[in-house]
Amino acid sequence: MAKPSKDARPTARLPKGLRDVEAAELRAQAAMIDKIRAVYERYGFEPLETPAFEYTDALGKFLPDQDRPNEGVFSLQAEDEQWLSLRYDLTAPLARYVAQNFQTLTKPFRRYAVGHVWRNEKPGPGRYRQFLQFDADTVGTDSVAADAEMCMLAADTLEALGLKDGAVVKINSRKVLDGVLESIGIDPAAESDAKKRLVALRAIDKLDRLGADGVSLLLGNGRKDESGDFTEGAGLAPAAIDKVLKFVTSGSGQDSLRAVESVIKDSAIGREGVAELIEIERLVEGAGYDRRRVCFDPSIVRGLEYYTGPVFEVDLTLQLASASGEPLRMGSVGSGGRYDGLVERFTGQKVPATGFSIGISRLQAALAALNKDAPAKADGPVIVTVMEKAHLADYQRMVQALRSADIRTELYLGNPKKFGKQLEYADKRGSPCVVIQGSDEREKGEVTLKDLIEGAKAAAAIANHEEWKETRPAQVSVKEKDLVAEVRKILARHQS
Amino acid sequence: MAKPSKDARPTARLPKGLRDVEAAELRAQAAMIDKIRAVYERYGFEPLETPAFEYTDALGKFLPDQDRPNEGVFSLQAEDEQWLSLRYDLTAPLARYVAQNFQTLTKPFRRYAVGHVWRNEKPGPGRYRQFLQFDADTVGTDSVAADAEMCMLAADTLEALGLKDGAVVKINSRKVLDGVLESIGIDPAAESDAKKRLVALRAIDKLDRLGADGVSLLLGNGRKDESGDFTEGAGLAPAAIDKVLKFVTSGSGQDSLRAVESVIKDSAIGREGVAELIEIERLVEGAGYDRRRVCFDPSIVRGLEYYTGPVFEVDLTLQLASASGEPLRMGSVGSGGRYDGLVERFTGQKVPATGFSIGISRLQAALAALNKDAPAKADGPVIVTVMEKAHLADYQRMVQALRSADIRTELYLGNPKKFGKQLEYADKRGSPCVVIQGSDEREKGEVTLKDLIEGAKAAAAIANHEEWKETRPAQVSVKEKDLVAEVRKILARHQS
Repeated sequence: MAKPSKDARPTARLPKGLRDVEAAELRAQAAMIDKIRAVYERYGFEPLETPAFEYTDALGKFLPDQDRPNEGVFSLQAEDEQWLSLRYDLTAPLARYVAQNFQTLTKPFRRYAVGHVWRNEKPGPGRYRQFLQFDADTVGTDSVAADAEMCMLAADTLEALGLKDGAVVKINSRKVLDGVLESIGIDPAAESDAKKRLVALRAIDKLDRLGADGVSLLLGNGRKDESGDFTEGAGLAPAAIDKVLKFVTSGSGQDSLRAVESVIKDSAIGREGVAELIEIERLVEGAGYDRRRVCFDPSIVRGLEYYTGPVFEVDLTLQLASASGEPLRMGSVGSGGRYDGLVERFTGQKVPATGFSIGISRLQAALAALNKDAPAKADGPVIVTVMEKAHLADYQRMVQALRSADIRTELYLGNPKKFGKQLEYADKRGSPCVVIQGSDEREKGEVTLKDLIEGAKAAAAIANHEEWKETRPAQVSVKEKDLVAEVRKILARHQS
Repeated sequence: MAKPSKDARPTARLPKGLRDVEAAELRAQAAMIDKIRAVYERYGFEPLETPAFEYTDALGKFLPDQDRPNEGVFSLQAEDEQWLSLRYDLTAPLARYVAQNFQTLTKPFRRYAVGHVWRNEKPGPGRYRQFLQFDADTVGTDSVAADAEMCMLAADTLEALGLKDGAVVKINSRKVLDGVLESIGIDPAAESDAKKRLVALRAIDKLDRLGADGVSLLLGNGRKDESGDFTEGAGLAPAAIDKVLKFVTSGSGQDSLRAVESVIKDSAIGREGVAELIEIERLVEGAGYDRRRVCFDPSIVRGLEYYTGPVFEVDLTLQLASASGEPLRMGSVGSGGRYDGLVERFTGQKVPATGFSIGISRLQAALAALNKDAPAKADGPVIVTVMEKAHLADYQRMVQALRSADIRTELYLGNPKKFGKQLEYADKRGSPCVVIQGSDEREKGEVTLKDLIEGAKAAAAIANHEEWKETRPAQVSVKEKDLVAEVRKILARHQS
């Protein structure tokens, strides 16, 4: 390979919004994924994996707050000039899969999927352009029992992650929201009102972030944010805005669910939505989930455009603090809902469906802030040091013997000239024990084992270097043939 | 959501070269990955995950057979017009990561990574544009012990997958190949010979596929393939071609390794390469791996351009057959090598490194053909059927009770009107047992359990429908309060 000139050298950097995930976090993530998978499997879902990118038109454009085509997604062109996009969620590819394989699938089709999704959005603190989602979906049923099941799945997943008392599944319904909008004169079925409806729903979706005043502006003539950017409003009259705000801020729980019936009583779609929510509540409570785990919340909208019925959102109820002690706003860590039109987009045939998605990356950040994530550090490896380079094959044999006994082991592969470097390496790797064989030991058929954990403790108690040199704490010489057994003894001493 | 008109409907299809992976294959894949991870962990490697795409210039262009810029990779443009590319392997992102974090990394840095990579290449049978790789790399050491370790890691991984006697790790060295080319007048260090060298290496890399005659044409004036496409040759003289071919076809094993010393005796780089291979062989054999597991093979080149020293390739030695019985050519299922220049590309500082990569997708296809892949079917869920829709909450409670006992269970969520459909669904899902409660059972506080596995056997032995209706084999009525215990009994009956 030709050596590049200095000027031609690329800079080692990542595009903004992307990041590397290192060992401790990956291990914690893997433990989380295993726990979630166990719940999804218990519910009878089967795994499915679709590719990272698909034809842009097959994925559709359902991202929140995206007015320009292709905004929000990463797109590329195939050699035949057709546009492809990286998936922005796991639901759009599922709809494509179901439409493509409809004849042969067992229905209702129940699948789970875990995978990365990509969004070409402005990155921010804790907001990345690649993140991991874990979804479950039931396709081919209009039964509200399927929606109720998603809420229970979400609640059980939270419990499995140690968050039974730290998070809540909130439910609302797009039908109920449409009922409210209909009560102020926006016809959810009319093409002419479609834009106004979308702007109003997006406005409500921001209640959590902007408060009632901000939403009021967005429902009215529009809002200028801190950066000076102006967002056009839905253009509603003050009385209509009041009615909407009164509804979405009416709090949660069964009483408010009954109370909303009066608001939407003249809307057929609104009444349908309320009836569905009451049935979901009945099923969820019947199965033993109380209001602290699953409850109605009239402010839930969800950003994705494709929802058609019940919508769910998982919010943390615990107050999180950042490393510096400031309160941390996490946003939702999971969400979902019913999307009866996604498969129909392809086939023209009605295929009702509902699903739920965990935001792994965000949930993991929350668990880390709560110190509830799984123990993340693996045991460090035993390090076989290199005293004499000519005897590399002998050291390698020792490594081999230890690995064959299923003991995590490494041969020191750096420059062996400075022995101190080798001990430093072992220390940094969290090694419990190093193996040493110089010519003296070899002649006696021995190896020296140094217990680094014991040694660190002893070193702390020792007054000076001379004393340390004399006593050599936590160091033992053993017969080479007993290597595996003696290393096992040291490891057993430190087993947690 | 507005209903699209028929004309506006997208077609549910995948771009060519991409595919969906369904449950059985995913389960087998997960089992494989767990086994491989256990080996890599035992060797002391730590996990790392880098994003799916990066700046194109940071990944570099090292793909085989790609003469035009960006060929072979999928690229997209960020909003600042900079080019990004989906990673085509896991090594190029590792080099970027190491260069970016060099100061803080513990060196030698040992990481493993499992993830998808994407290649914009012509798809073919078993050749996809998205596939899964599992890599281990040691960065920051020029010790051949690190290369030797990669060979042992590969051999141990094959053993863990049940392929100890079915595959071999072949080693060669780019330095040895350069020595051979030097012996026929191609200077590996001269810029003016760079293109000729690359064309010659690519030609040798095709020995397995094209045979000695094909390689001979590519080393000479060029070759026209079956489709009529012409590939330009390296333009070597017949005597030079003979010398190269004699070398690469000289077979494997120690004798040939000693024998090549005579061919490259006038080349400093060639002698260095042979000395390294001899040392690797000594370490690998010293650790107990015989020639059937790890051996020298002078025909190994590897396609990726960035290798600078030893190169490895894992080939299956078992003869595979396709489903229709024809012999199946799998190509290599793993590969790797030393790449001392990849980090230097960024920093100008020499950071020697070596690595090994398993092609999960291809290896899994091979294991499937050998029937050596893990048992792939999960146990089907218990299905609680719906006899009366008004009692959905009661059925849901039963589902909940079973799931709480960690029994994989589903409520039937399709249209419950036709009971036969529910049994058909249970059957298709591989359900061991369905739970039934009609009004009769409810009044008696009972449920009926139908053992579907036993039932299928009994049905096969029964003469006609009347007899079946009379005896109702494998069906039992139990007290509702004993639901969990009685279902457990049925499951225990069928536990493998």
